[in-house]
Amino acid sequence: MTTYRAPINDMLLSLNHGAGLKAAVEAGHYGDFDADITAAVLEEAGKFAADVLAPLNRVGDKHGIKLQDNAVTTAPGWPQAYRQWSEAGWNAVSGPEAFGGQGLPLAINAACTEIWSAANVAFGLCPLLTLSAIEALDAHGSDELKTIYLGKLISGEWTGTMQLTEPQAGSDVGALRATAQRQDDGTYLLKGAKIFITYGDHDMTDNIVHFVLARLPGAPAGTRGISLFLVPKFLVNADGSLGRRNDIYSTGVEHKLGMHASPTCTMTMGDHGGAVGYLIGEENRGMQCMFTMMNQARLGVGLEGVGVAERAYQQALDYAQQRRQGRAVGKPDGEADPILVHPDVKRMLLQMRAMTAAARTICYATAVALDVSVRAGDAKVRSEAAARGALLTPIAKAYSTDIGNEVAYLGVQVHGGMGFIEETGAAQHYRDARITAIYEGTNGIQAIDLVTRKLAADGGASVWALLDELSATVKQVEASNDPAFGTTGAKLREALAALERASRWLLERVTTKPNDALAGATPYLRLFGATLGGCCLAGEALAARDNGTGDHERYVALARFFAENVSVQAPSLERTVTESADAVNGADAVLLV
Amino acid sequence: MTTYRAPINDMLLSLNHGAGLKAAVEAGHYGDFDADITAAVLEEAGKFAADVLAPLNRVGDKHGIKLQDNAVTTAPGWPQAYRQWSEAGWNAVSGPEAFGGQGLPLAINAACTEIWSAANVAFGLCPLLTLSAIEALDAHGSDELKTIYLGKLISGEWTGTMQLTEPQAGSDVGALRATAQRQDDGTYLLKGAKIFITYGDHDMTDNIVHFVLARLPGAPAGTRGISLFLVPKFLVNADGSLGRRNDIYSTGVEHKLGMHASPTCTMTMGDHGGAVGYLIGEENRGMQCMFTMMNQARLGVGLEGVGVAERAYQQALDYAQQRRQGRAVGKPDGEADPILVHPDVKRMLLQMRAMTAAARTICYATAVALDVSVRAGDAKVRSEAAARGALLTPIAKAYSTDIGNEVAYLGVQVHGGMGFIEETGAAQHYRDARITAIYEGTNGIQAIDLVTRKLAADGGASVWALLDELSATVKQVEASNDPAFGTTGAKLREALAALERASRWLLERVTTKPNDALAGATPYLRLFGATLGGCCLAGEALAARDNGTGDHERYVALARFFAENVSVQAPSLERTVTESADAVNGADAVLLV
Repeated sequence: MTTYRAPINDMLLSLNHGAGLKAAVEAGHYGDFDADITAAVLEEAGKFAADVLAPLNRVGDKHGIKLQDNAVTTAPGWPQAYRQWSEAGWNAVSGPEAFGGQGLPLAINAACTEIWSAANVAFGLCPLLTLSAIEALDAHGSDELKTIYLGKLISGEWTGTMQLTEPQAGSDVGALRATAQRQDDGTYLLKGAKIFITYGDHDMTDNIVHFVLARLPGAPAGTRGISLFLVPKFLVNADGSLGRRNDIYSTGVEHKLGMHASPTCTMTMGDHGGAVGYLIGEENRGMQCMFTMMNQARLGVGLEGVGVAERAYQQALDYAQQRRQGRAVGKPDGEADPILVHPDVKRMLLQMRAMTAAARTICYATAVALDVSVRAGDAKVRSEAAARGALLTPIAKAYSTDIGNEVAYLGVQVHGGMGFIEETGAAQHYRDARITAIYEGTNGIQAIDLVTRKLAADGGASVWALLDELSATVKQVEASNDPAFGTTGAKLREALAALERASRWLLERVTTKPNDALAGATPYLRLFGATLGGCCLAGEALAARDNGTGDHERYVALARFFAENVSVQAPSLERTVTESADAVNGADAVLLV
Repeated sequence: MTTYRAPINDMLLSLNHGAGLKAAVEAGHYGDFDADITAAVLEEAGKFAADVLAPLNRVGDKHGIKLQDNAVTTAPGWPQAYRQWSEAGWNAVSGPEAFGGQGLPLAINAACTEIWSAANVAFGLCPLLTLSAIEALDAHGSDELKTIYLGKLISGEWTGTMQLTEPQAGSDVGALRATAQRQDDGTYLLKGAKIFITYGDHDMTDNIVHFVLARLPGAPAGTRGISLFLVPKFLVNADGSLGRRNDIYSTGVEHKLGMHASPTCTMTMGDHGGAVGYLIGEENRGMQCMFTMMNQARLGVGLEGVGVAERAYQQALDYAQQRRQGRAVGKPDGEADPILVHPDVKRMLLQMRAMTAAARTICYATAVALDVSVRAGDAKVRSEAAARGALLTPIAKAYSTDIGNEVAYLGVQVHGGMGFIEETGAAQHYRDARITAIYEGTNGIQAIDLVTRKLAADGGASVWALLDELSATVKQVEASNDPAFGTTGAKLREALAALERASRWLLERVTTKPNDALAGATPYLRLFGATLGGCCLAGEALAARDNGTGDHERYVALARFFAENVSVQAPSLERTVTESADAVNGADAVLLV
C-alpha cells in the first residue's frame, strides 16, 4: 500500500501567492474570511485523507463495485468512510451557510478536492458531482426544492448526480431524447435512458438526488429544447422522511479501464410508469443550469488531475529513493545507489513535480477567480473575475488533466518493470487518470471553448488582461537578478510573446476562418498552459523569496525547471497553431479515407 | 471485436524507399534476394494476422493466463493459433537457411513483426524472444548445441526465453546472483530465481529453450562475471526426443496492467538439485552474447510500438467515421456528422497516423542497416551499416514505443467516453503499449545508450553521416517546389540544424561533464526522432511522387503534417538539451528530498 502526505507548504504557497488568495483577501474581496484558518483546514483534510481515504484506494480498485437487482454495492469500507467524511463536515466546506454549509471560499474547497483526489480519486469523484448539483440547485432551484434538498446535499447526507449523456448524445448534448411530461400537480414524469452516470447508484447514502436533462413534448430541437429536472431516488415526504422509490434505476454498470470503485451506471427511467421530477429553473432553459454545474465540475476534474499527479509523484519519488540500481557517474565500484542519482531519473521526477505544481496553481487561480466573481463588493471586480474564471476554467480542466496523465505515465516509468505490475499501484494512477481528459467535456472540447468563447469574448480582453499580469511577474523575475532562476525570465518572456501572437492569429480567424482556428485549439491550450504555468511558478518563487521562510531555493529551482523544460516549448507550439492549419484541414481529404 | 488490415502500400513504400531496402538490393547488398516477393509475403502475413491473430487479441486480454502446479495455460485458442502460425513458416522468415530458415532479410521479418504486433501484440511477443534466442545461439553457440536446438527454434516448434532480470538486478544486469556450477560432464548446474520472464512457461509448444544469465563461482563482480547458458525445459535425448523435465519452473506469474495473455513468470532453478545448462560462448563473456539478443529484441520492441500504434489508429479512424456528433462548422442544422469532420478530431487522427508512419520507417531502416551489416560483400559497407544499425537501434526502440503509447492515448481520446470502456478495445492498446517503453531496456536507458555509446562512437561519425543523408532529402523537398509540401523543407532544415547543434553540445560534454550529457539524453532522443522521422516521411513522399502511382498526395500530406506538427518541436528540444542541465542536476538537492 502506498501512502499519501498532503504537501501543505506547497499548497499554501500556491493558494495564497500563485493563485492570489492572499491578495484577494487583503483587497477585501473575501469579506470577513479569516485566512489564518486555511492551513489548519488543509492539515486536517490531509490527515483525514491519509488515514481514511488513501488506504481504501487500492481496495476500491481491486474490488470495484457490484450491481445486483438494480442496486450498486461499493467496495468494502467505502460506505463507512463516506459517512465518516461527510459527518466530519468535509462535504460542506464551501456550501452556503444558509443551508448548513461552512461558507468557506471555493478556493479552500479546491485545495481539499485536490487532497481527496490524491488520496482516492474514485472516492473524491462522488462529492465532486454533489458539489455541482448544489451549485445548480442553489442558483436555479425554487425555494421549496432548496428547503427540501439543499441542506442534505450540502451536508453530504445525500449525494447528487449529473445526467446528460445518452448513447447518441455525448459531446453533442443537444441530441438527447429523454422525455419529461408535465403532470397536473406541477411535477413532471420522466422516461428514457442515460449512460455514463457517475455514482448513479451506490450504498453510501440513503438517498440520491439526480439532476437530469430531458426534453418536453414539442420542445425546440437541440440545446434550446432541454430542461433540467431534479429526480430523487426516493421521493421525499412533507416531513422530510423518505417516501416511495422513484422510477429511476441503475440497470447496468460499465467495465472500465480505471476508476473501478466509482460506479458508472446506465440509468433507466420509466420502466414502472415514469420517474417523478421537479423542474429546475425554466422549461427549455436547462442548458443554462447545466453550465452552472459543468463549470464547477470542470474545475473539479482539473483538480482530480492535480491530485492524481501529486500521488503518482510521491509514489515515484519514494521508489526512486529506495530502489538501488547502478552507481552515480564517477563513483568507484561499490554498493548500488538509489536510482534518484541518475540524471534521467531526476529529470522525470522534476518534470512530474513541476508539472503538478503548475497545474495546481492554475486550478487554484480558477477557484479564486470564481470566488471573487461572486464575493467581491465591487461590480467591476466581480465581472472581471468572472471573465478570468471563465477563461481559466477550460485550461484548468484540460491542462491539468493532460498533466495528470503525463505525470502518471512518468510515475510508471520511474518504477521500471515494477510499474507494470498492478500490485505496485503506479499503474492504478495511470488508469484512473485517463478518464479525466475525457469526462465533463473532452480536452478537445475545452480547447474549442477556450478559443471560440473565452479568447473570442470581448476581442480577447480577458486574455490581454491576464498577459499584462503575467508580464509583470516576468519583469520581477528579471529584476531579481537571482542567478538561481537561470534563464527563467528569458524563457517566460518568449513564451508570453508566443502566446500573444498565437492569440491574435486565432482572434483574426475565429469568425472568418473558423476551421483554421479550430485546428489550432489544442496546441493553443497547451501553449497557454505552458506559459501560464511557468509564470505562476515564477510568481510563487518570488513570493517565497519575499516571505523569508528559508526554503525559497526549492521554489526557484522548480520554476526554473518548468520554464527551461516546459515553457521553452511555447515557440514551437505557437508555430503549430499558426502554421499547421492547412496541414490539418487540407490533409484529411487524402488521408482520412 | 475490432478488425485489422495490414497497410500494405504504406509498408512497402516505407520499406523500399523510406528505409532504403530497394536501394540496398539494387546495390547488391542483398545478394540474390528477389525483392519482388516482398509484397506477397506481407500480404500473406496480413491475411493470417487478420484472420487468426486479431480475433484472439481481446480473448487473450480477457482470459489472461493461468498458473497451476508450476505450469502456465494460455488463453483459449492460443496454442492452436501458435501452431498454425509456426507451421505456416512465419517463425522462420529470417532464420538461417542452413537450419531450415527461409533466409529472408531481417527487414522483411521486421515488417511481419509489425503485423503480428498490430494484430495481437501479446502473441507476437513470444516469437520475438525466440528470434533473439536464435540470434544468440547462431552467433555464439557450439555446433553441437546448434544441431540440437537451432532448427527447432527457427521452425518455432520450440520457443525461446531471455532470462536476465532478478529482483535486485533490473537495469543493473551486473547485480545478478543466479549461480552456475561446472559439472564433470561439461554441463553446468544452475540455481537461483529470475523475475519478469516473458513466456517463461506456456502450453503452446512441447519444449521451451531458456537462455539464462548466471554467475560461476569466483567470477568477477558486475557484468564481467556473467555467463550465458542454454537451459531447456525438457532435456533433449541424443535422438532428438524429449528427455527428463529440467529443474527450471515457473513459480509465479505477474498481475499486470496489460499484455494479459503473455505470461510474465518468476522462474526458479534448483528446487530439485539444479537445472542442467549448457554454456553459450565463453565463461564470463555472457554479456556479449546477451547484447546480441538484446539488440534484436530492442528493434522488435520498437516494432511492437509501431504495431500497436497502427492498430489503435485503425480503430480510432473507424470510430471517427462511424460516430456522429455535432455538425461541421458552417453547415446548416441537420443530422449530425461523423466526428471526423471536426478539426480537432482530424488533428488527433493525423497525429496518430503521422507518428506511426515515422516510427515504422525508423524501425525498418534499422532492420535494413542490420541486414546490410552482415550481408554486404564490401567490408566498409558492412562496417558503416553496422554503425548505422547501432545508432538507430535505441531510437527505433524508444521513439517508436513512445509513439506507441502516445498514439494509443489518442486512440482512447478519439473514442471519448467509449474509450474508457474495456469492451471498446481502445483501452487494451493503451494498457498493452505501456510496457514497451520499459522492457528490453527502459527508454531512458536507450537514450543514455544513444548519447554515451552511439553518438560518442568515433567522434560522432555515424551521426554526421546520417545528417548528410537527411540533408540531401531536405534539399530534394525544397527543389521539388511542390506547394503541397507547405513549410516541410524549412521545418526539416531547422530540425536538422538543431539536431546537429545538440549533437555537438553533447559530444563536448559526454566525457568531461557526463551528468550534463546524461540530463539531456531523453530530450535528445526525442529531437533525433522528430528530425529523422520527418526526413524519412519526406523521403517517402518524394519517392511516391517519382513512382507515379497516383497516390503521392497522401504521402506528401503526411510528411507535411509531421514536419509542421512534430519536427517543428526540434528547436525547443534542442534548447531543453543544451540549456536545462543545470535545472536538472542543480535542482535535485533542494527538490528531491
